[in-house]
Amino acid sequence: MSRTVYVNGSYLPEEEATVSIFDRGFLFADAVYEVTSVVRGKLIDFDGHMARLRRSLGELALSSPVSDEEMLAIHRELVTRNDIDEGLIYLQVTRGSAGDRDFAFPPADTKPTLVLFTQAKKVIENPAAGTGLKVISIDDIRWGRCDIKTVQLLYPCLAKMAAKHAHVDDAWMVRDGLVTEGSSNNAYIVTSEGTIVTREKSQSILHGITRAATLRLAEEKGLKVEERGFSIEEAKNAREAFITSASLFVMPVVEIDGAAIGEGRPGELSRRLREIYIEDALKTAI
Amino acid sequence: MSRTVYVNGSYLPEEEATVSIFDRGFLFADAVYEVTSVVRGKLIDFDGHMARLRRSLGELALSSPVSDEEMLAIHRELVTRNDIDEGLIYLQVTRGSAGDRDFAFPPADTKPTLVLFTQAKKVIENPAAGTGLKVISIDDIRWGRCDIKTVQLLYPCLAKMAAKHAHVDDAWMVRDGLVTEGSSNNAYIVTSEGTIVTREKSQSILHGITRAATLRLAEEKGLKVEERGFSIEEAKNAREAFITSASLFVMPVVEIDGAAIGEGRPGELSRRLREIYIEDALKTAI
Repeated sequence: MSRTVYVNGSYLPEEEATVSIFDRGFLFADAVYEVTSVVRGKLIDFDGHMARLRRSLGELALSSPVSDEEMLAIHRELVTRNDIDEGLIYLQVTRGSAGDRDFAFPPADTKPTLVLFTQAKKVIENPAAGTGLKVISIDDIRWGRCDIKTVQLLYPCLAKMAAKHAHVDDAWMVRDGLVTEGSSNNAYIVTSEGTIVTREKSQSILHGITRAATLRLAEEKGLKVEERGFSIEEAKNAREAFITSASLFVMPVVEIDGAAIGEGRPGELSRRLREIYIEDALKTAI
Repeated sequence: MSRTVYVNGSYLPEEEATVSIFDRGFLFADAVYEVTSVVRGKLIDFDGHMARLRRSLGELALSSPVSDEEMLAIHRELVTRNDIDEGLIYLQVTRGSAGDRDFAFPPADTKPTLVLFTQAKKVIENPAAGTGLKVISIDDIRWGRCDIKTVQLLYPCLAKMAAKHAHVDDAWMVRDGLVTEGSSNNAYIVTSEGTIVTREKSQSILHGITRAATLRLAEEKGLKVEERGFSIEEAKNAREAFITSASLFVMPVVEIDGAAIGEGRPGELSRRLREIYIEDALKTAI
């Protein structure tokens, strides 16, 4: 069955959903995005995603095409029209098209492009949560503003393919000897003392919405959190490892560069954090 | 009058030229491009652009949508249909659309997207050549593979806007104290001894087609060329400065961060190189 997607005010069959070849999202990657998870037909941390979207837009002097209320209405309409019980909603805002190509921004009255579509998939009962992910490490050669959620995603695509060729699930990126993050997720280890360690927020990593929720919930449960960089060597010797993202929630990592983490099975704390996160998400989804 | 543009085998009025919202060029900046100049209806250094396109495609395991011969035929058809005497032809290849969003590459039989369009503009009698350009310097925070001509152009767009806000024409990017290149061009200085200095080829700069031609022509004329990095301080104290690009050819730079270069007017060598380049381009265009 064909999905119904949203493009600039219209709900369309996905096969008819297009943008101009002059759209700056297509020509310059002059665009930002968000991905929000849906559980039982409801949106997880919608306000968090909207706050980050506003921040991304602001950093690039991009204007918001619709209000947060309209954005929520579009999300809900797509959930309904596509009968999404569990899955994702992808949202992209570009600087629009002025009908030609010029590096300089187009006139201020150029309408931003807004595209949204759904992806039905199991997000709670994800079988990967039972086995855990294997990752490799690769150099982080991305640009200096990874805190802005832009569509400049070519390197994360190459990272996924490097992982695929190595017969693993993902790649952790390393800059100056320390892990920044996964290809499309934040990276964590659990030390032998049970401390959760993840890179501090900066322009080098995405400020994950699921990261923020997970750290908040961990601290509420009395768990110790340290925000700092860690090396692949430290990660290999950690008790546990995991990632967080809007679509994977908390997901255990069981192998890094061929080395088993802990027992080589999803760690106890990672599994507990996943449960806590899902419980909270189900309670607070709107 | 509406331009005729090319999209995946069809010649279309520009208003009807679209790509799917699932095109990887739109979602992931998973795309490369080339810009070829047209003089008197002929293409400058077409073979050079095709060679670089093939290299960009190869580095990203992207397949070429058409042969070089077909590519040449499309370029010529667009020149004819749009009656281009002087201007540019923009070409973009993306990894196409598999009808959904996934970081991993789509199945190998997914057809790449090919888009071309023309821009009529004065490239020989560009008035900027008479006055020269003013530039500012900014940090180079781009990713580590600037030698691949991808559409990850958000930072060059921001660089152009920084230049605009500073009431100058362009920005030179500086990494680790040395100039890499301009926002969409290669950067050069001429020392007091008359040596042309420009950054050596590496993954940090685009390997300009016009750069290669200019250096070749300079050496043919007995001029001394040094391929090495230089600082903004060295540039400010240089006798001359200039840039090269497919659309600007050789273009004098007369001011860097507010400091006049040499006499603050286009330098003699820069003007001569521009003439030599144009003469050669007119002779060799196809």
